[in-house]
Amino acid sequence: MTEEFSLSTPAGTGFADITAQVRQSLHRALEAYAAAGGDPEQAEGVCRVFCPHTTGAITINENADPDVLHDLAIGLARAFPDRSEFRHAEGNSAAHLKSSCIGASETVLIRGGRLVLGTWQGIYFCEFDGPRRRTFLVQTELRRSLP
Amino acid sequence: MTEEFSLSTPAGTGFADITAQVRQSLHRALEAYAAAGGDPEQAEGVCRVFCPHTTGAITINENADPDVLHDLAIGLARAFPDRSEFRHAEGNSAAHLKSSCIGASETVLIRGGRLVLGTWQGIYFCEFDGPRRRTFLVQTELRRSLP
Amino acid sequence: MTEEFSLSTPAGTGFADITAQVRQSLHRALEAYAAAGGDPEQAEGVCRVFCPHTTGAITINENADPDVLHDLAIGLARAFPDRSEFRHAEGNSAAHLKSSCIGASETVLIRGGRLVLGTWQGIYFCEFDGPRRRTFLVQTELRRSLP
Repeated sequence: MTEEFSLSTPAGTGFADITAQVRQSLHRALEAYAAAGGDPEQAEGVCRVFCPHTTGAITINENADPDVLHDLAIGLARAFPDRSEFRHAEGNSAAHLKSSCIGASETVLIRGGRLVLGTWQGIYFCEFDGPRRRTFLVQTELRRSLP
Repeated sequence: MTEEFSLSTPAGTGFADITAQVRQSLHRALEAYAAAGGDPEQAEGVCRVFCPHTTGAITINENADPDVLHDLAIGLARAFPDRSEFRHAEGNSAAHLKSSCIGASETVLIRGGRLVLGTWQGIYFCEFDGPRRRTFLVQTELRRSLP
Repeated sequence: MTEEFSLSTPAGTGFADITAQVRQSLHRALEAYAAAGGDPEQAEGVCRVFCPHTTGAITINENADPDVLHDLAIGLARAFPDRSEFRHAEGNSAAHLKSSCIGASETVLIRGGRLVLGTWQGIYFCEFDGPRRRTFLVQTELRRSLP
């Protein structure tokens, strides 16, 4: 099952916590799995979260202290600043660079019908060239776990 | 189904658009899926693209303006330059570093028998220590999508 | 099949080769696959390796010369140093940054019942804020390869 979500992003760089949307999508997939005769508590698999934009990305990082997100934005801006040698006329090459370094997708494991995330992990949509209207996809795949 | 492709890369850093090869591989997988009784238009799944080289990588980024690729090469060279403290005798540690930051693989979703890529997204084989003869793998997995 | 492993990490940054644990996990999954009537030599699929910690990561890089790992640590420390603008009170924002740049997981392909890794590729658990007791997960998925 693949679902699409949309969001509005702030100016410049921002991180939107999308963990709740991924859990919603998993919940609907588990309902379909149960309707087809599967046992959700034995379901194993993955949620794949994909960003279809070349100046956005998906990452997993700390969900407790928002200062971590502030510091991620600063650290990426310093490592990948705009540079005078850049040629791309749109002027957002630094955002494209951050997108490739963070990556377009994350794969989150499912075990016993639940997302396997560490205590401090949240899933984030990363905006590097906002503000924009954006979308992301969540594909959930479930099957019976082997003994 | 897993297929292997090969390519020749330029000196230093370069990005080869391999989206067409990934689509070819998906096309062959869809033919096998249909031959086994599946409906390609209901097929959901993934193409996994993997680079088996430690100074190469796979990324997804802009497919329209080649200046973006030029700027990616420059931005990575500036963020991860050669350093006097490096010890690796082969002298290509900066390439290994870029390889780990960009990552060895990408997972691209399939929905309705088609790759789910944004308008501006292409799939790239990244060379960070060329020229070399390189290979990459595409593994396609298809199944019937749940309602 | 999903298995959990644990390890102790050194102070600061370190890379632990976990390729052997991933192979062990694949081996057990192949046994279960064979017990269920599958032919391991025709098995295709993936091992997904996931790090549930926000100052750790998983990467694939050179397994031969340990100097490459030394140089990776230095190159990441230089690209993502601690910065006076950082706000996160725990003082480990640089580690969170490295975690997002390297990424929480890797997907390794399986073909003919074997991990598809290049000659020089090993799978590494990355510690960016050690010493700590850490865990990682390996989820193996196998199926009969299409002709």
